[in-house]
Amino acid sequence: MDQVEKSLDEKKAVKSEPKSCNVTEFVGTGIGDAIGLVIANVDPQLHDQMKIDKKYRSIGILGARTGAGPEIMAIDEAVKATNTEVLSVELARDTKGGAGHGSLIIVGSEDVSDARRAIEVALENLNQTNGDVYSNEAGHLEFQYTARASYAIEKAFGAPVGKSFGMVCAGPAAIAVVLADTAIKAANVDVVSYASPGNGGTAHSNEVILTITGDSGAVRQSVIAARELGIKLLGTLGSKPVSTTKPYI
Amino acid sequence: MDQVEKSLDEKKAVKSEPKSCNVTEFVGTGIGDAIGLVIANVDPQLHDQMKIDKKYRSIGILGARTGAGPEIMAIDEAVKATNTEVLSVELARDTKGGAGHGSLIIVGSEDVSDARRAIEVALENLNQTNGDVYSNEAGHLEFQYTARASYAIEKAFGAPVGKSFGMVCAGPAAIAVVLADTAIKAANVDVVSYASPGNGGTAHSNEVILTITGDSGAVRQSVIAARELGIKLLGTLGSKPVSTTKPYI
Amino acid sequence: MDQVEKSLDEKKAVKSEPKSCNVTEFVGTGIGDAIGLVIANVDPQLHDQMKIDKKYRSIGILGARTGAGPEIMAIDEAVKATNTEVLSVELARDTKGGAGHGSLIIVGSEDVSDARRAIEVALENLNQTNGDVYSNEAGHLEFQYTARASYAIEKAFGAPVGKSFGMVCAGPAAIAVVLADTAIKAANVDVVSYASPGNGGTAHSNEVILTITGDSGAVRQSVIAARELGIKLLGTLGSKPVSTTKPYI
Repeated sequence: MDQVEKSLDEKKAVKSEPKSCNVTEFVGTGIGDAIGLVIANVDPQLHDQMKIDKKYRSIGILGARTGAGPEIMAIDEAVKATNTEVLSVELARDTKGGAGHGSLIIVGSEDVSDARRAIEVALENLNQTNGDVYSNEAGHLEFQYTARASYAIEKAFGAPVGKSFGMVCAGPAAIAVVLADTAIKAANVDVVSYASPGNGGTAHSNEVILTITGDSGAVRQSVIAARELGIKLLGTLGSKPVSTTKPYI
Repeated sequence: MDQVEKSLDEKKAVKSEPKSCNVTEFVGTGIGDAIGLVIANVDPQLHDQMKIDKKYRSIGILGARTGAGPEIMAIDEAVKATNTEVLSVELARDTKGGAGHGSLIIVGSEDVSDARRAIEVALENLNQTNGDVYSNEAGHLEFQYTARASYAIEKAFGAPVGKSFGMVCAGPAAIAVVLADTAIKAANVDVVSYASPGNGGTAHSNEVILTITGDSGAVRQSVIAARELGIKLLGTLGSKPVSTTKPYI
Repeated sequence: MDQVEKSLDEKKAVKSEPKSCNVTEFVGTGIGDAIGLVIANVDPQLHDQMKIDKKYRSIGILGARTGAGPEIMAIDEAVKATNTEVLSVELARDTKGGAGHGSLIIVGSEDVSDARRAIEVALENLNQTNGDVYSNEAGHLEFQYTARASYAIEKAFGAPVGKSFGMVCAGPAAIAVVLADTAIKAANVDVVSYASPGNGGTAHSNEVILTITGDSGAVRQSVIAARELGIKLLGTLGSKPVSTTKPYI
């Protein structure tokens, strides 16, 4: 009984409002030790160091210990909905001992309310964009899909804006090589990028990350085919992989 | 009594057949969250992305969360025994929170049965090649030796094919600097490569990796001298380091 | 009661003499799985591999699984006090699953007693230089300050020797972007370097690291302002961050 209540409490904790903090720059927190922040007037010395155009007086910041794909997708929706631009997407080798990435994403705006709104929207999106992240004790799988990519996806992967976009990723990387082949064969899609531990595109994470574009039905079909196989393959190294939140694709 | 049975069960678990999986591409699993896979007909788009010559219609894939040296040595034996070629060796910064690497190794063949056989042989070899990997709560030591290096060792370290080869590695890296000096002084050997966290050869792991060549007796003597010292030095940071399986050198 | 004694024992363990080891090269151990070592006469082959001038017959080695800033600061004091030179400072992506770095630092001397003394001094300094490293379950904060930087700080960050130096760092990196802005605005200081996960200066850690110079009062004021804010922001992701030892700034 105690156990059940504890589980419910934990679930509520995830869905509850972020822990508040009496600091102007604080926006909120999210899954994966994600934190959202804003700076209303970036100091000129910091502008120079970050190589950011000074017309972006305000910046919004989204970072996480666990997750890069979910944050990129969440910011992609946020920039569609707000008057902001994606200034940088950086991957860290993290996930707190897991096989993948953490992230640091910066958006810019002339007015701080726009940057703040973008980060709020992104934090709200994290529940959905973590939906097709599956994990067990041996590793993780990540799948993403959108019918219309925007500027965060373009910045991170070089994918065409306005077109359908899909992502297939797994760690250990070996599994993702097979998932990549499966995704490409499952439907008529074009490869946008292929990242691997030692040959670029990752921060030496133990992942292969394939991104694809094409007709939206085809992209979705490819991602779903890879997801089905990935759950089987990662399961051979441990228990059945489970979604972080709720699958959305 | 229960404890003893549990231990035996765990040992059996390691030695038992890998968890099976109803997927054509699956070959098996091994120590360190290793997984072996094959693709019979690599999609041409994936060939391009992986920069693999299209004459290798089939590829074998060996990857692990924990371990790169053991996988390289295991594939080295596998390519001696099969009609395959080592196409790439990539290091990931991994070991699930440990100081070292995970790995992604690709072998190519014209016929899928060759690639599959290579991965089977490699998975069988992992028990031996993990034998001189020692660890405690503070880090790990790794030693490898072969009387005759083949193409995986050449690809990974630039060592001469057909000659004796030794590897000395430890994390934290500081310990391995002393082990490297000890190995070089212990016998008449030539250094092949020296990798460190910030100056190349590692994926920013907390390791120094020395590889040596020379007369087989000398190489073996060097590796053994370093191993003896390494167990003492890593032991100052925690409990006595223990072998992952059973020492073979 | 047992609990209390255990806690005291653990505290004593940290402050007690390092576990001894019957090896000439061993100097001692410290916080963060730090280990200090010396080599009296570096083998010429190792000199070449490490790209060290052969006039440094002896080297001192300080490495850690958890921590780079504390080790750099500790060596900085050590080279002020001894006849040694800082030959290299390398960052590893480590901290045993945390967001930051491990380290490998080499000092050189003509006489082994100098190298040994430098490493002894550095190990003694680690308790202090870990004082403004704060952590909780979600990440860490690190602050450093000295009124007079020496050669380790110059080597690691390019900071001017003989001048006041401050460092502001946090993981997840998002928090540190705001801390950097706060530090720069808090007093009249000049930025020396800004490192981030994907744009250089880190080993893909999930950190932003800002270093500053200027009037010593101003630098100290900047660091303290960032520290106050950092404790609040990291606290939104978990419990209140606590110092590893005892704050010194």
